[in-house]
Amino acid sequence: MPELPFRERLASAMESADSLICVGLDPQPNRTAADEILSFNTRVIEATADLVCAYKPQSAFYEAAGFAGWQALKDTIETVRRVAPHAFVILDAKRNDIGNTAEAYAQAAFDWFGVDALTINPYLGGDAVAPFLQRPERGAFALCRTSNLGAGELQSLQVGEGEPLYLSVASLARDWAAANHDNLGLVVGATWPDELAQVRARCPDLPILLPGVGAQGGDLEASVAAGVDADGQGLLVSVSRSVIYAGDEEDIREAAQDLRAAANAAKPARLSS
Amino acid sequence: MPELPFRERLASAMESADSLICVGLDPQPNRTAADEILSFNTRVIEATADLVCAYKPQSAFYEAAGFAGWQALKDTIETVRRVAPHAFVILDAKRNDIGNTAEAYAQAAFDWFGVDALTINPYLGGDAVAPFLQRPERGAFALCRTSNLGAGELQSLQVGEGEPLYLSVASLARDWAAANHDNLGLVVGATWPDELAQVRARCPDLPILLPGVGAQGGDLEASVAAGVDADGQGLLVSVSRSVIYAGDEEDIREAAQDLRAAANAAKPARLSS
Repeated sequence: MPELPFRERLASAMESADSLICVGLDPQPNRTAADEILSFNTRVIEATADLVCAYKPQSAFYEAAGFAGWQALKDTIETVRRVAPHAFVILDAKRNDIGNTAEAYAQAAFDWFGVDALTINPYLGGDAVAPFLQRPERGAFALCRTSNLGAGELQSLQVGEGEPLYLSVASLARDWAAANHDNLGLVVGATWPDELAQVRARCPDLPILLPGVGAQGGDLEASVAAGVDADGQGLLVSVSRSVIYAGDEEDIREAAQDLRAAANAAKPARLSS
Repeated sequence: MPELPFRERLASAMESADSLICVGLDPQPNRTAADEILSFNTRVIEATADLVCAYKPQSAFYEAAGFAGWQALKDTIETVRRVAPHAFVILDAKRNDIGNTAEAYAQAAFDWFGVDALTINPYLGGDAVAPFLQRPERGAFALCRTSNLGAGELQSLQVGEGEPLYLSVASLARDWAAANHDNLGLVVGATWPDELAQVRARCPDLPILLPGVGAQGGDLEASVAAGVDADGQGLLVSVSRSVIYAGDEEDIREAAQDLRAAANAAKPARLSS
């Protein structure tokens, strides 16, 4: 049976859990030893499976642990498939390169790890983004406005007729999505709610992956109000440390539950039905 | 014994082989099977050890092969250390992320794989670049103007008072290098010799990694003339397919020899002494 297109699969993942919450599976090297990563992640996945639309492992933390880390990443993805079969898996890898090299990264993510989406960097242009968008049922999220303090150093440079670069990236991403399989979204940090509103206005229909709530200080309510689409969907609120290090399994579940409820309550009134 | 600083180590690698040539260890998935990568690379390294200043494995091709690929990458790096101890190893990974995530990528590259430098993406700004520049003896090359046809889509957008984005990146990179350990260089594609000359004028002292000669059509002579620094150094001409797939060990050696000679001959006359 052929899989459904990317956007339908993503919408289904969000609707079936009635949740905008994506849990970042980011075992911090100084808090979780390499040989404990899988059991650590399994506990988080089991505690949150019915509460979230997606899991987002951060590739860097696994790579830093060497072979053991790569094995843990592959096993973690398989654990999500088994325990939370409705959920999307987004590999946070911020990859990009040109031509057949980008295709090799796509193979690593989609074919070898078997994830549904990965994060990519737009700096190389549309011909380097296209290899990530060749599988209609898989897709990518391109960095637009990142959550770090220095994000604006490049991303807010005024380009062309005076708009910041990140808005040009948003426009380009809209074109790239349309030129492929409508399977590209954007990454916008929750630390910049005004910029998020601008990006949503520019791209009413693109899914947005939103890191930065919680430990990084982004405001959940403001971000949800600014970031959801006209249907109160299309926004994946990614939280990590505040959930995965919340405490025991019950604490983890409660943290995810509270975030799901707060995010749903923050949808603009006409949408919260 | 503490290691020398990054720039001294790089200069020493170039001088000891009297070579600007960096060989890209890029086993194409459709031409080299995963279990043949190490023997394929070993043959290339043995054939070229005294002719090149650096080797540059392209991470994507190894990642696409899964665990076997990661093992081959680690073994390849160890093979360079054994067979060509003078040579730099540059992991072409085009990584970046924020804060402690970037630090995890730096750990993966420098501590786990043990490379001397890696390529990084500048889109996230200087605070995301800094974690790659904390080891005085290791460093990074930031994408500036990439070799692909679509490079200009973002990189040539006019910013600020009307200069292309890639020149702003060049200026920022100069500042980032100075603010750390003078251990940041730039990636500029050989397919754009005019842009290369502009970048060299903007950053007289930064090392430049130059892919795109050979299969991608970049002109070696024009690039060397435009790209070397005032001492006729500071440019790493990266070639891959035209060397590694040249034929048997003798053909590979000959291809590297010819490129080394052509690159050295193309240095501006006052420098070729």
